[in-house]
Amino acid sequence: MTAVRRPFNFSAGPATLPEPVLRQVAAEMLDWGGSGMSVMEMSHRGKEFGSILERAEADLRELLAVPANFRILFMQGGGLGENSIVPLNLSRGGRVDVVVTGSWSRKSAAEARRYADVQIAADIGSGHSIPNDWQLRPDASYVHVCTNETIDGIEFHDLPRLTNGVPLVIDCSSHLLSRAIDWSRVGLAFGGAQKNIGPAGLTLVFVRDDLLGHALDICPTAFNYETVAANHSMYNTPPTFAIYVAGLVFEWVKNLDYAGKRGLAAIEQRNIDKARLLYSTLDASGFYENRVDPSCRSRMNVPFFLQDEKLNESFLAQADTAGLLQLKGHKSVGGMRASLYNAMSLEGVQALASFMQDFEARHG
Amino acid sequence: MTAVRRPFNFSAGPATLPEPVLRQVAAEMLDWGGSGMSVMEMSHRGKEFGSILERAEADLRELLAVPANFRILFMQGGGLGENSIVPLNLSRGGRVDVVVTGSWSRKSAAEARRYADVQIAADIGSGHSIPNDWQLRPDASYVHVCTNETIDGIEFHDLPRLTNGVPLVIDCSSHLLSRAIDWSRVGLAFGGAQKNIGPAGLTLVFVRDDLLGHALDICPTAFNYETVAANHSMYNTPPTFAIYVAGLVFEWVKNLDYAGKRGLAAIEQRNIDKARLLYSTLDASGFYENRVDPSCRSRMNVPFFLQDEKLNESFLAQADTAGLLQLKGHKSVGGMRASLYNAMSLEGVQALASFMQDFEARHG
Repeated sequence: MTAVRRPFNFSAGPATLPEPVLRQVAAEMLDWGGSGMSVMEMSHRGKEFGSILERAEADLRELLAVPANFRILFMQGGGLGENSIVPLNLSRGGRVDVVVTGSWSRKSAAEARRYADVQIAADIGSGHSIPNDWQLRPDASYVHVCTNETIDGIEFHDLPRLTNGVPLVIDCSSHLLSRAIDWSRVGLAFGGAQKNIGPAGLTLVFVRDDLLGHALDICPTAFNYETVAANHSMYNTPPTFAIYVAGLVFEWVKNLDYAGKRGLAAIEQRNIDKARLLYSTLDASGFYENRVDPSCRSRMNVPFFLQDEKLNESFLAQADTAGLLQLKGHKSVGGMRASLYNAMSLEGVQALASFMQDFEARHG
Repeated sequence: MTAVRRPFNFSAGPATLPEPVLRQVAAEMLDWGGSGMSVMEMSHRGKEFGSILERAEADLRELLAVPANFRILFMQGGGLGENSIVPLNLSRGGRVDVVVTGSWSRKSAAEARRYADVQIAADIGSGHSIPNDWQLRPDASYVHVCTNETIDGIEFHDLPRLTNGVPLVIDCSSHLLSRAIDWSRVGLAFGGAQKNIGPAGLTLVFVRDDLLGHALDICPTAFNYETVAANHSMYNTPPTFAIYVAGLVFEWVKNLDYAGKRGLAAIEQRNIDKARLLYSTLDASGFYENRVDPSCRSRMNVPFFLQDEKLNESFLAQADTAGLLQLKGHKSVGGMRASLYNAMSLEGVQALASFMQDFEARHG
């Protein structure tokens, strides 16, 4: 291991993790807590892993202020898996309303159609702001919203408040743990770990008690929320090592100090400051462009374009040399994308902004 | 990290891993191959992880001599997940025959009933040897067999040869990569990684080309074998770190030398010798007992009982002190269980056998 500064990694996920967490994982690799075992080698039913899971869940519950009537499930299959698992558990074969704000919610709607009568309640189309007028059905089983569109860089800064009693399902994969969640507006939240939380292969589900127990007969038992909850995420062998890393990340967030704040409030403030710095750099320039309406620009994923797309390859190559990694935009939209997840420091965003200004000065 | 000998870990899974693999994982934790990233932090679509996945798949294909008409899929959800995913993909809503040889195949049969007309072709009941007389239906979509029952310690030493053209599905979770597989007898094989291969959360599926493309409409897209195959295990974000560790284990097996053999032949011979040593210790004693018929005793999982069950707690406590970990039997059967997966050395089994003889001498 080296004391040299690591590069800044702007990957959209799997994504950069806190260096102290990686160092601890490395140090404990052959012997966790004097057990003589790596966490990878422990029975999921033993007391050692039991304590890891219990602490991770308690820390996550505390960090996000998850109410007692929500269950936290540690699952597998990622966001795309949940696109099926949610309707299998919650649709009751009835009606599902989906608000389409980008690529992810569009995929969710298509998958839910296999199990339910799906209506697109609103559709962003080729626009760049969240539509206001939603056609909601009062007898829908739930309303699905993707609260941060990773590819399109669109984020709900406030959760919608549904007044008709229909549960709100939020796919919050790419901003989970980056900010507080108003649980009074939510029935179910899900997210893959590989953005703000830990290794790919772990999926977190937060589900309100009253939504358990309504799965369709065809729901695979391993993905039945009620079964997973009743077995404390141990119906099948959970992704133990990923849960352990996630637990270390939760501890890291709890202990983070920033701008006089601590824990989730500190990480949220840091995320606000990081995003403000990058968007202000983009907006001050005629060389770069972010097309998202300021009312819903994502703090986590910042897609941007060079006005002269012929410079794209050169931009990426020079960024790489400058230790600014994985800035290429998603293939479906092109251009660039900087993901500013929790583990990205303000210093990293400053380095990116400086590089961009310097590149513009040389090529603009 | 310490140079002291690590304890021997007999967990049934997640299970012991090769120490050199753990050391390499620790050493590369902050910087894989000069990339400046941990494998956990890499985009699954980047060239770095692409090379890791490609090499892991190629090494696995070589080790197990997987024919070109089989696809290797890196999935999520474990063996219990596959209990649904297999019938969703292969049953065509028709008939499925299951041979029940213990706890795992009994669970598989129950789950498959949600999607197909399931017949128990044979049932071990409370016996201790694999039944010979199988009632197979010629129009079944497939026959399901669990080729190593982890809880019961029962293994198929040879795969059944079905002569009626019905595909054989093998759940080989707990002996995958411990021995050669006769692919001419197999249509699909699946296994969780957390026994012989790597961290929990990765599931390996080997599927013959002609069995792709028949999924039921209700099969979740993320678990549709055809979709996963068409996307080279990248339809959704794969469990990247688990795949990386698995790849290091494949390399370790490839380079293993034992008794004049190399690679899979070496590991298989070592597994034979380890199992022989432990079973001969058990059989030479009137103090311990293994009840499985010698024709189908598992090389991987050796359940055994102390004739005087009052000594169980004392046995486990003293074993723990002697550095022999996780020997407690599955709660459904009681007693002890020693799992002798690939990463367990002959030295570890010798230490266990010596301890058992010593314990018998002091308490018998």
